[in-house]
Amino acid sequence: MAGPGQMDRLIACLAKLPGVGRRSAERMAVRLIRERTGLARELVSALDEATRELAGCVQCGSITSASENPCALCTHPGRDSRLLCVVEDPADILAIEKSGGYQGRYHALMGKLSPMRSQGIQDLRLQALLERVSRDRVEEVILALNTDVESDATAVFIRERLADCGVRVTRLAFGLPVGSGIMYSDPVTLSRAMKGRQMP
Amino acid sequence: MAGPGQMDRLIACLAKLPGVGRRSAERMAVRLIRERTGLARELVSALDEATRELAGCVQCGSITSASENPCALCTHPGRDSRLLCVVEDPADILAIEKSGGYQGRYHALMGKLSPMRSQGIQDLRLQALLERVSRDRVEEVILALNTDVESDATAVFIRERLADCGVRVTRLAFGLPVGSGIMYSDPVTLSRAMKGRQMP
Repeated sequence: MAGPGQMDRLIACLAKLPGVGRRSAERMAVRLIRERTGLARELVSALDEATRELAGCVQCGSITSASENPCALCTHPGRDSRLLCVVEDPADILAIEKSGGYQGRYHALMGKLSPMRSQGIQDLRLQALLERVSRDRVEEVILALNTDVESDATAVFIRERLADCGVRVTRLAFGLPVGSGIMYSDPVTLSRAMKGRQMP
Repeated sequence: MAGPGQMDRLIACLAKLPGVGRRSAERMAVRLIRERTGLARELVSALDEATRELAGCVQCGSITSASENPCALCTHPGRDSRLLCVVEDPADILAIEKSGGYQGRYHALMGKLSPMRSQGIQDLRLQALLERVSRDRVEEVILALNTDVESDATAVFIRERLADCGVRVTRLAFGLPVGSGIMYSDPVTLSRAMKGRQMP
């Protein structure tokens, strides 16, 4: 495989997708070119359709159809507007919705404070968050952020920015994930689970 | 994110790529739709171009430009046709080429014997391999297969099929990968490294 220009271009493009490294991009490109079932054509058509008919929700930032913006989650009358769940990525909204335990609204930051990836305050949907909090009379902002150092820093930053708004700020509980064992848990998770211990 | 039909379709399509699960596909889809730099458009164009101008090499199975088939590796006069390196996937050819230690020809099987993924003998480019071995007067077939159980079974199968051809069949050495520690190696790797020990 002499790596013709078109192949390099396709690989470079696929490697820009989240979680895709150079090696995975190479395997994907090979599959896309060789696949006899027309996977490449199918993907082109799905992308065409999706970019034409989908858009980011102007309010929460999740994906919605271009004809329904703000999205159904933002306009649904049955959801509690006093609760606002803040996530890093719109895909996180899907995961929380699947868990079924939440009936409030959402707000996607589109990232987190990450000096490593030169993502700063100006890259997050923070101003929009502050505006929503005061405009929609939010009573509790639930930070459903990831659990790494950058997400921790982002959580502290948002808490401080919201300090003057008179809104309660909480964060998802830390602890042992379901199905895991004490033996396989890292020390930080264990100490946080210990700290947050509850009545069984 | 109510998961509109176009979004589901894009996610399902991305999840068909090798190494991509449902979760990764969701993240990719969100990025593709939201990305302001036009990643989706870029990908559509790269796919369009690649499917139009690239093809599988009729001989080795790797990716080549439609106007150069068989590919440069198959036609290069400086490469040794007596050596034939058999790989599972065309992307493996790229990896071996980068390692720089090989100057023979290649043959991609396009998979391995895998009952789990209902991939059998008829799905592999085996007949083409047998024909090449006798036609090109190959002296050594080097099996550069992966190191899992299915690849092991495939290696044994090919060795038996080639037994009557009078060709030498070898397989890449098993052992410790560079940069790893004894402590972190699994028992099978360690016992294979022990069995294949060499003078330093």
